[in-house]
Amino acid sequence: MSNKGAGFDIDAGPPPQIRRIGVIGCGRIGRMHAGLIAAEIPGLELAAVADAVPAAADQVAESLSVPVLTIEELLAAPDIDAVAVCSSTDTHVDLVVAAAQAGKAIFCEKPVSLDLAQVDRAVAAVQAAGVPFMIGFNRRFDPGHKSVRDAVADRVVGDLHILRITSRDPAPPPPEYVTVSGGIFLDMVIHDFDMARYVAASEVVEVYARGTVRVDPRIGEAGDVDTAVTLLFHEDGTMTTIDNSREAVYGFDQRVEAFGSEGMAVSDNPARHAGWTRTREVTSSQPLPWFFLERYLESYRQEWAAFHSYLVSGGESPAGLDAARQSTAIGIAATRSFREGRPVSLKEL
Amino acid sequence: MSNKGAGFDIDAGPPPQIRRIGVIGCGRIGRMHAGLIAAEIPGLELAAVADAVPAAADQVAESLSVPVLTIEELLAAPDIDAVAVCSSTDTHVDLVVAAAQAGKAIFCEKPVSLDLAQVDRAVAAVQAAGVPFMIGFNRRFDPGHKSVRDAVADRVVGDLHILRITSRDPAPPPPEYVTVSGGIFLDMVIHDFDMARYVAASEVVEVYARGTVRVDPRIGEAGDVDTAVTLLFHEDGTMTTIDNSREAVYGFDQRVEAFGSEGMAVSDNPARHAGWTRTREVTSSQPLPWFFLERYLESYRQEWAAFHSYLVSGGESPAGLDAARQSTAIGIAATRSFREGRPVSLKEL
Amino acid sequence: MSNKGAGFDIDAGPPPQIRRIGVIGCGRIGRMHAGLIAAEIPGLELAAVADAVPAAADQVAESLSVPVLTIEELLAAPDIDAVAVCSSTDTHVDLVVAAAQAGKAIFCEKPVSLDLAQVDRAVAAVQAAGVPFMIGFNRRFDPGHKSVRDAVADRVVGDLHILRITSRDPAPPPPEYVTVSGGIFLDMVIHDFDMARYVAASEVVEVYARGTVRVDPRIGEAGDVDTAVTLLFHEDGTMTTIDNSREAVYGFDQRVEAFGSEGMAVSDNPARHAGWTRTREVTSSQPLPWFFLERYLESYRQEWAAFHSYLVSGGESPAGLDAARQSTAIGIAATRSFREGRPVSLKEL
Amino acid sequence: MSNKGAGFDIDAGPPPQIRRIGVIGCGRIGRMHAGLIAAEIPGLELAAVADAVPAAADQVAESLSVPVLTIEELLAAPDIDAVAVCSSTDTHVDLVVAAAQAGKAIFCEKPVSLDLAQVDRAVAAVQAAGVPFMIGFNRRFDPGHKSVRDAVADRVVGDLHILRITSRDPAPPPPEYVTVSGGIFLDMVIHDFDMARYVAASEVVEVYARGTVRVDPRIGEAGDVDTAVTLLFHEDGTMTTIDNSREAVYGFDQRVEAFGSEGMAVSDNPARHAGWTRTREVTSSQPLPWFFLERYLESYRQEWAAFHSYLVSGGESPAGLDAARQSTAIGIAATRSFREGRPVSLKEL
Repeated sequence: MSNKGAGFDIDAGPPPQIRRIGVIGCGRIGRMHAGLIAAEIPGLELAAVADAVPAAADQVAESLSVPVLTIEELLAAPDIDAVAVCSSTDTHVDLVVAAAQAGKAIFCEKPVSLDLAQVDRAVAAVQAAGVPFMIGFNRRFDPGHKSVRDAVADRVVGDLHILRITSRDPAPPPPEYVTVSGGIFLDMVIHDFDMARYVAASEVVEVYARGTVRVDPRIGEAGDVDTAVTLLFHEDGTMTTIDNSREAVYGFDQRVEAFGSEGMAVSDNPARHAGWTRTREVTSSQPLPWFFLERYLESYRQEWAAFHSYLVSGGESPAGLDAARQSTAIGIAATRSFREGRPVSLKEL
Repeated sequence: MSNKGAGFDIDAGPPPQIRRIGVIGCGRIGRMHAGLIAAEIPGLELAAVADAVPAAADQVAESLSVPVLTIEELLAAPDIDAVAVCSSTDTHVDLVVAAAQAGKAIFCEKPVSLDLAQVDRAVAAVQAAGVPFMIGFNRRFDPGHKSVRDAVADRVVGDLHILRITSRDPAPPPPEYVTVSGGIFLDMVIHDFDMARYVAASEVVEVYARGTVRVDPRIGEAGDVDTAVTLLFHEDGTMTTIDNSREAVYGFDQRVEAFGSEGMAVSDNPARHAGWTRTREVTSSQPLPWFFLERYLESYRQEWAAFHSYLVSGGESPAGLDAARQSTAIGIAATRSFREGRPVSLKEL
Repeated sequence: MSNKGAGFDIDAGPPPQIRRIGVIGCGRIGRMHAGLIAAEIPGLELAAVADAVPAAADQVAESLSVPVLTIEELLAAPDIDAVAVCSSTDTHVDLVVAAAQAGKAIFCEKPVSLDLAQVDRAVAAVQAAGVPFMIGFNRRFDPGHKSVRDAVADRVVGDLHILRITSRDPAPPPPEYVTVSGGIFLDMVIHDFDMARYVAASEVVEVYARGTVRVDPRIGEAGDVDTAVTLLFHEDGTMTTIDNSREAVYGFDQRVEAFGSEGMAVSDNPARHAGWTRTREVTSSQPLPWFFLERYLESYRQEWAAFHSYLVSGGESPAGLDAARQSTAIGIAATRSFREGRPVSLKEL
Repeated sequence: MSNKGAGFDIDAGPPPQIRRIGVIGCGRIGRMHAGLIAAEIPGLELAAVADAVPAAADQVAESLSVPVLTIEELLAAPDIDAVAVCSSTDTHVDLVVAAAQAGKAIFCEKPVSLDLAQVDRAVAAVQAAGVPFMIGFNRRFDPGHKSVRDAVADRVVGDLHILRITSRDPAPPPPEYVTVSGGIFLDMVIHDFDMARYVAASEVVEVYARGTVRVDPRIGEAGDVDTAVTLLFHEDGTMTTIDNSREAVYGFDQRVEAFGSEGMAVSDNPARHAGWTRTREVTSSQPLPWFFLERYLESYRQEWAAFHSYLVSGGESPAGLDAARQSTAIGIAATRSFREGRPVSLKEL
């Protein structure tokens, strides 16, 4: 029997229907998802963990009191309802295809693939199997970001004219990661491409992107940039500007602003806490959260709650195949725009 | 093996020393503490739960997979390091005395007693047994409030001159609760009396209190007030103003401000999230958290982390016998001041 | 023809009816009022200035191109509609009486007198003459403070329960000023007593005040305090807390908060401007305005605009005889409460 | 003798050296400048006004008590030190040339011309005459915006990486104005182009601009757009994003953000005042200032103070010939980029 939410949800209504999840991939993000599923999400249970390197799964399995299975065993287990694909990006498509063929519901970390044809192969397999599918764009579930999307959907801002997204990481990844990342547009800005589609609810038709190396020359030597500005043109005329940096020394800077005919909606950065001081010289408040889990933990909780609700109640995926495919497509177009110094239409792809 | 903190603490240093806690009292606050201990605090394990009405413990025991013991069994269990006294106020002193005599470390919900002589009996028993003791003034562990106390302790505000505390609940308790609560000053303002001592680090020597019935006439009929203003005079000359209401319709309003010779430090209210909108007429942001756990959950986590650290490392209690005794003493003085319409010196008690 | 407001009001409707003002007293506050009347307030013209020491009026008269008159000449001048009494406090009553007898409308700086019988003499003369009278409680006209009063009057906060006023000066006055000031409650807190009556729209019936010397021992040697906390009890049950300091090193700290059954309204401190920075360590914004004119210039403009409107349109004074009398009465009661260590009823006076 | 600043500057140091200004052009902006010079800027005196339609100058001349001259008389007047060119844009170059040849110091409203060759003609005349020249980019003198520029210049943000500028007007101009405006990039965004150069202190080398008609179809029929997003690439690698709208229904939205290797500096929107309310449903604060003078009056004051200081003390112009020329050049490049759908290098011009 699950112990999650104890203490503050105990009185909250009838018990949720249980869905059992197997996590594939026990790196940092896989361990986090496994821990959340095991301990915090009403209605979800962690059934097992797997990793291509089985030993990598031992510690998390022990600490969460679940078995380590091989990937094949996990996909074949009849008491597992859904798999969470948290392995390295280059393994996503094969795992999604296998999971779809095994009839499992699928949660897949972003991106499905850096290659659009590969994404299409995964999409086709999921569609053929008719299994539930959700991609891990957790920022959709951040309460502040979601409030901006809701203000647009509820027409509080009227017709959307301009969307501004700022997304800056507190510290750059190691240069060796950059080499396999697919580049900043497919690795980092892809979150913002998804956010633009999610908030605007209008497809992106053209991309113009610029990038520079300002943070770490080794990122440039690895063939990538660490600072980027992107302009998206949407089907309905909305224009989105996105600015990114691999290093904001003051913390994890994540903002969304939707401007339209009736006003604007903003998701600002939360402070670490609400304490501040004022002296002769200055009024001082907190810097921003630094660690991605300090900033986005609630979004991961809400993401899993949304996945549970989707599994139990059906309906449209909270972040479905279109989100999986289009975010990669925009990322590829942005990369091409950056390389060729011109706006790139999505139709070119 | 415990599963708490999984996913985001897995890599964080050597495993903490384990301490096992038995929770006595399975009402709302006891269930919350049991849940936190079981699922979220590295180094603490929930060993068992007990309640004067044993059936009241069944649900929480089952959901958290721990046994229900009688209070006597719990106090006698050799593998239980500490007890959390979460039962009704009138049972606190006997339980603290019994736990002390059993050699258990003690966490006791506030207040120890509404009667100063009874508090003194508990204090004497704890001192005689030499066991660790901590009282549940969770607000000391709120990151914002703690930042004010730290700014005073670190002399960022220089000499403290004025302390302002606002503490307003989102909704009044039922009138029948008011009857057994000891009155607003001992039930609600006691948190602020403790906060004043904690931030100022100077004893209160005189109290002047006023109260009115503005929220619910039934509270007046029950012999209490629902709106109060209190002025504390500290030994070092600091003056504290406290204002309280049983009903702030906009949410749980909890603020602390320390003003001194070099500046001020403030703990403001956090918003529910950092989203907002701006239209032709108004700029609109979130109201305040409503539920006490939305506002203070982090303080409870930090409180248990502090208790664990105190059990493992010793040193001064994070909220010791003096906090337990003086908060009740100030509450009694405030009640007397309110009833007699005059300032009351603590020496009178 | 007046040159004021040129450039940004030129197109704004029909020209206002002109009223001509004579300013008596050319110290700092008199010079400021003369300058505002001369240059910034549509509908007002500065007619002349006077001072008990005529040479003190020369510089301001020259710079504003108006004649210096004796006080007698100014009161007798047929083309002067109103006088502004800006001389030292001990001369106010005689000047108000003389101006009333001369049939002039009167603007009088606060306080009318430190002595209630003297205030009553002025009140009687004004009432006998039937001339317009306004006392210079400029903070009533601060846009933020006024928005709090409006929120109470419009019942946005429902029934008012608690009022909190913070009023802290950036730097203490010279000790020699303290000697003639009437003490902190009649000199400084009197603004807040008026604010409490203005916002609450309910008379004060009882006062409890405490004071300490924390800022400058010479203020104590002069028989006064520099730090004070006051609790007001209003006729309708509203309770007001006021905290004051002669020295807030971070600037001029002026806040009002009205809490009631439906919510709260706050007048916060404006920053000097809306620029801020965020670095690795801290988020830094502006300290507060320091000089009283930086903080309250707009209130003085609005005050004179309100006086003009009152002269032209009649109706109730924006700050009338009751404000003049009751603020002094509360100040005397607060001083007595502080000295005798007990709550003092206004009925005692 | 001037009466400006009276009341609050009377004691402030030795009198400033006087410079006498003649204003040419008595439309809205010319009247505002005339009024400020006459009434508010220490050291400046309004000497005369002129307008191509002399009757247009009568009202402002009368209200400010200065003579109306013909433009020729004004340029020939020996007691006029400087002229303010506030007439329609198409007259700027001829007037600047004539004023330079007359040896007058020149303040010229932006833009000097919509045509770069014409700007160059004005630049050459000013350089040949060696007269002081300043262009009216008032936003450089806004205290918040200036604080961002200072933070960059003082290296508080380290190396500048990304600059974000938002500039949205509260209401669109009449469509007939749009026809003669030169288009949004030369009429409105030109302020932001100047801001980008001013804050970054690095020349713009390439521009990419997109625009749409979202606010008023008549603006589209007039051949212009009302919503625009522009990306600037600077010589030092800094990237600037600018977003503009002709209609922000919530007020005048003007923000600048500089992000760099050591942090960020922001100029946020000031609220109308610091009052706010909080009820069951919402926390409500002020919308933004609406009228450009409510938002930017202080910048105009500071602009004239800077002009006075430049006239008296010499040194580099606070907004010189390079600002005049480059802002037009960037505006032309942006217009071409928007029309041709491609990034445009400044070298093309």
